[in-house]
Amino acid sequence: MEALVIHAPGDLRVEEVPTPAIGSNQLRVRVRAGGICGSDLHYFQHGGFGTVRIQEPMVLGHEVAGMIEEAGPGAIGFAPGERIAISPSRPCGLCRYCQQGLQNHCLDMRYYGSAMRTPHVQGAFRQEIVVETHQAHRLADTVSDGEGAMAEPLSVALHAVRRAGPLLGKRVLVTGCGPIGAMLVIAARRAGATQIVVTDMGAHPLRKALQVGADEAINVAEQPDGLARFTADKGHFDVLFEASGNERALRGAFDALRPRGIIVQVGLGGEMTLPINTIVAKEFDLRGAFRFHEEFATAVELLNKGLVDVKPLISATMPYRDAGRAFALAADRSQAMKVLLSFD
Amino acid sequence: MEALVIHAPGDLRVEEVPTPAIGSNQLRVRVRAGGICGSDLHYFQHGGFGTVRIQEPMVLGHEVAGMIEEAGPGAIGFAPGERIAISPSRPCGLCRYCQQGLQNHCLDMRYYGSAMRTPHVQGAFRQEIVVETHQAHRLADTVSDGEGAMAEPLSVALHAVRRAGPLLGKRVLVTGCGPIGAMLVIAARRAGATQIVVTDMGAHPLRKALQVGADEAINVAEQPDGLARFTADKGHFDVLFEASGNERALRGAFDALRPRGIIVQVGLGGEMTLPINTIVAKEFDLRGAFRFHEEFATAVELLNKGLVDVKPLISATMPYRDAGRAFALAADRSQAMKVLLSFD
Amino acid sequence: MEALVIHAPGDLRVEEVPTPAIGSNQLRVRVRAGGICGSDLHYFQHGGFGTVRIQEPMVLGHEVAGMIEEAGPGAIGFAPGERIAISPSRPCGLCRYCQQGLQNHCLDMRYYGSAMRTPHVQGAFRQEIVVETHQAHRLADTVSDGEGAMAEPLSVALHAVRRAGPLLGKRVLVTGCGPIGAMLVIAARRAGATQIVVTDMGAHPLRKALQVGADEAINVAEQPDGLARFTADKGHFDVLFEASGNERALRGAFDALRPRGIIVQVGLGGEMTLPINTIVAKEFDLRGAFRFHEEFATAVELLNKGLVDVKPLISATMPYRDAGRAFALAADRSQAMKVLLSFD
Amino acid sequence: MEALVIHAPGDLRVEEVPTPAIGSNQLRVRVRAGGICGSDLHYFQHGGFGTVRIQEPMVLGHEVAGMIEEAGPGAIGFAPGERIAISPSRPCGLCRYCQQGLQNHCLDMRYYGSAMRTPHVQGAFRQEIVVETHQAHRLADTVSDGEGAMAEPLSVALHAVRRAGPLLGKRVLVTGCGPIGAMLVIAARRAGATQIVVTDMGAHPLRKALQVGADEAINVAEQPDGLARFTADKGHFDVLFEASGNERALRGAFDALRPRGIIVQVGLGGEMTLPINTIVAKEFDLRGAFRFHEEFATAVELLNKGLVDVKPLISATMPYRDAGRAFALAADRSQAMKVLLSFD
Repeated sequence: MEALVIHAPGDLRVEEVPTPAIGSNQLRVRVRAGGICGSDLHYFQHGGFGTVRIQEPMVLGHEVAGMIEEAGPGAIGFAPGERIAISPSRPCGLCRYCQQGLQNHCLDMRYYGSAMRTPHVQGAFRQEIVVETHQAHRLADTVSDGEGAMAEPLSVALHAVRRAGPLLGKRVLVTGCGPIGAMLVIAARRAGATQIVVTDMGAHPLRKALQVGADEAINVAEQPDGLARFTADKGHFDVLFEASGNERALRGAFDALRPRGIIVQVGLGGEMTLPINTIVAKEFDLRGAFRFHEEFATAVELLNKGLVDVKPLISATMPYRDAGRAFALAADRSQAMKVLLSFD
Repeated sequence: MEALVIHAPGDLRVEEVPTPAIGSNQLRVRVRAGGICGSDLHYFQHGGFGTVRIQEPMVLGHEVAGMIEEAGPGAIGFAPGERIAISPSRPCGLCRYCQQGLQNHCLDMRYYGSAMRTPHVQGAFRQEIVVETHQAHRLADTVSDGEGAMAEPLSVALHAVRRAGPLLGKRVLVTGCGPIGAMLVIAARRAGATQIVVTDMGAHPLRKALQVGADEAINVAEQPDGLARFTADKGHFDVLFEASGNERALRGAFDALRPRGIIVQVGLGGEMTLPINTIVAKEFDLRGAFRFHEEFATAVELLNKGLVDVKPLISATMPYRDAGRAFALAADRSQAMKVLLSFD
Repeated sequence: MEALVIHAPGDLRVEEVPTPAIGSNQLRVRVRAGGICGSDLHYFQHGGFGTVRIQEPMVLGHEVAGMIEEAGPGAIGFAPGERIAISPSRPCGLCRYCQQGLQNHCLDMRYYGSAMRTPHVQGAFRQEIVVETHQAHRLADTVSDGEGAMAEPLSVALHAVRRAGPLLGKRVLVTGCGPIGAMLVIAARRAGATQIVVTDMGAHPLRKALQVGADEAINVAEQPDGLARFTADKGHFDVLFEASGNERALRGAFDALRPRGIIVQVGLGGEMTLPINTIVAKEFDLRGAFRFHEEFATAVELLNKGLVDVKPLISATMPYRDAGRAFALAADRSQAMKVLLSFD
Repeated sequence: MEALVIHAPGDLRVEEVPTPAIGSNQLRVRVRAGGICGSDLHYFQHGGFGTVRIQEPMVLGHEVAGMIEEAGPGAIGFAPGERIAISPSRPCGLCRYCQQGLQNHCLDMRYYGSAMRTPHVQGAFRQEIVVETHQAHRLADTVSDGEGAMAEPLSVALHAVRRAGPLLGKRVLVTGCGPIGAMLVIAARRAGATQIVVTDMGAHPLRKALQVGADEAINVAEQPDGLARFTADKGHFDVLFEASGNERALRGAFDALRPRGIIVQVGLGGEMTLPINTIVAKEFDLRGAFRFHEEFATAVELLNKGLVDVKPLISATMPYRDAGRAFALAADRSQAMKVLLSFD
């Protein structure tokens, strides 16, 4: 079996890896589609992000869907031939955070394709994978493998939306509309936001955001003052989803956000210098959002029922053996939103 | 000008009433459509409900839309010819509850067509009405007068949904699907519920509920045990909207509701005998929902943007001079969901 | 070793039971004090409550403290001679509710001295008991064994208070002040309530409630209208803790509770007939509160730091061999709040 | 009548100002005690803070208590000779934020002694003042004028605590223990926090914090690593109140704060550079807290009932004609917590 293994920045190889053994409550799955995430790109381009660095060869990938080939002993309710989206999240279930229902903060998390711990947790860009039954979420016939692979970034957006509290009737600003920003538009609309405005520096992502339901897109490269008309009476928006990881995007939205406005920070971005007095005086509520847990099931259910449409965000599907070209395209914000790999 | 005036149970008259004078920050509006609400029916059939009784002649009606004829001094931003939905809610703005943002609990509320206080607050089933600018919400060209009149019951449902907290990814049960129950289906879906099951005793309302987006409809007259398959592991649903006002509906849902389940009671229904030990042991959270405030603006915005579709719930539109027939139809659950009056 | 075993209503025996074996992560504990709870009384007087009935002999008791005699393998951080309060709650840790942090709704709960499942879970009124380390909470030298045994009912009250949300600055009504009602006074005060009014039918519990910090006590046997002066402007209290399980107490408080008032129902009481229209129109929020989980640690910490004082609620301490007399006293509301058994 | 008027940095004068006229629903009050706040000090030392600067002479002061001299027409329930604490907060009651119950974000706020708007709102360091009845909160005989003047900073702390959500059983860290930090210790304890640890750079404020109830005080000037032992398992504290306005204090607490930890930022401090990735990955919730509204009544009620004790925080009481010395003392953190002025 082959897998996509990162060895160093720029050094991504198709390599033979051993076929895994299957155990109790496990499924052997033929991987069919895998989405290239921003973190995959960071490993590829820079060998990691922040303090996280590749220390050893690691299979990339954590956004995948596939078809069950074999159900292990006790894997009741699953059968070969069924198509599933695979949650890359494997919390321990026993630590204090798991026992509080905060599995995304598990003290012993094994998340696919992550160098946060060493030995690294190997990823899912491979032809075959063995998963726990709790990771497997059945896809409806109406949902393609590629859409199934999108369940993961959709889960991230759903989790961020849930961190914001109820959105029904709310005015929402999304800064940064890469794949996660665009998913946030979809998720916020699904949760009942009445107005969704997005900002970005690029025309292509803004077009995509409009396509998936944003009411208005502001190109802050062309209109640096584009949010000025939302600043009357101490600010217009109830909720800001910051998905760019850019300090200027976050700061620039403060005047457009009403007192008691909620900011959900999703984008990673190192150090940011912020006007703390504004946060105090307007009583903002700045909340981090990190990964997801039960939202994966929700994502698949929304896809299965046709309650969300992620297809406009799929820019291309390319064979895994063309990973180099696929990663290059994924890195080009002027053309690509989400690039998928096929593993057939 | 003519209006529909209730004098006693069954005694609803078309009567001449004086044309109102217009003052500052007010609008004179030609009423074009008015929805017959359950409370209108109660006044008509029984002279009231609970301890509320008609003490004097009262114009009925509180679900109306119309066209501006004249904008009074200071009514900036409104112009003759504009079509609006009219919020029937006029809180005082000054009492302790208004100052806490709980205007629906205002100590001096004047809600159209209500005998809760004497002198009664006269209603809006009239050819012409004078309203405050804060009651007026502009309708998009794509929204009919009749849909505009539906903004009021939609607001009730939106308020009930907001009382439930976030619904994104939640499993929802709606018991009773008259006009409010059906609106709850629309609102819960808009707020992101992934599964919506409805129950009722009648085939027609259940059909309508499916038409506006319910996943499944259970006729509990035919299948008294219809919820039994949702009782495993202490219950399936996260949230129950009880819109029937029927004790059996509420009690009957307890086994299908998970621990910490939220019950939003919307239906009025006098005394109910409940198994309090179940509420304690499963730690249910039973919340009343009454009218609305800021949700009216949300309702109109959702209609204007096409984010909800209430058209399937309009059963008929009849001239106000045929009020007798219209009220009879509105009372017939086997045929009618919402019956509208036209005032042209 | 001896234990207190209930065989049938009125048939409570001191019996020899086998000495338990100790395993990994377990502690063998000499029980020193045990509080008689309302549910112990119900088993003794009626053989159970609601649909829960004794089907086989069962050791009673779930409010106990003792001294460690032996620490099993892996029971790190515990040593013989240490005094502990013992949580009677043993959730499975694995079911869907445990994984959501809702351990009190565990699908496989084994709670001491409970006939809710068969075979019954044997209780803690015994000379020696083996517990899991997670059940053991060290007592400070300043806290007596008897106070340690009170950690359990205090936990119930703390959990109910947490179900109410923040109490800082709130006006609180407690209806029914048996041991749990009195504990609710202590817990609500500790959580920052500014006004606490209690009602009961008996002089003794009301005196005790004042002693532990209530601002005002109303004997509703003598003053049935005692809450009438709290009804202006739609009601005075923000939060009601209903600890009597009595329908009249709950209904009688509705007029004194403000719109959006929170009712935490703690008392068990079978069927109750309630004016549902009041719950709807005032938008009450009626929440069940059942047992506790993490609050046990909080209870012990509050006791250890002297942040609460439960001593006034200890009415008597009697040898377990006098269980008959002790249970009779515990049942007499005119004399007793909490009766403790000693097991020395 | 005399008042304390700031003209420029360092230029604080005792000046004659006109005696105010009294109107409907107003009270004429002899001021008896006034606390020097950090913002008063900033006006005195620097002429303002952030972008707020003195543009014209302004009477300082907003923490005052006094005795009613005259009750105007309609000021029912107030009588000459009664002692009151005076809330300096006068929201408009009509704007969108007031109508949402967010009076501290009023679009037309007139807060005593504030140069945030021009003409500035004159302050309360004066011999006589006329106030609205809603500003007046009666003091119990057991509460001194000086304690009454402390109701204002106590309100700030109560508001910050309410921003944190329920504290019952929570572990709390307070960074910075000037007067507000110390008040936060008092308020957090009153709200049920089980553990309260404080940090500061000075010995005197830490001593005071211990005196008002902190469990532990860490001098981070002497022990820069003093929080290191709270970092196991991703962090120990549930809630952080940041009251220093110091970037290092905020950043330095991140490792000691558990995932989903709540940070209430109270201290003002210009720009801060923060590791945004930590906020994201640990899903912190950083909330600003600004002034107060209904908490003023709570503060006075807590003082009146003896449920909090602020006396240890009163460092000195000096005549207003010695304002220079009083302000110098107030600025000396090695000696003073709160310095009061007397106006007799």
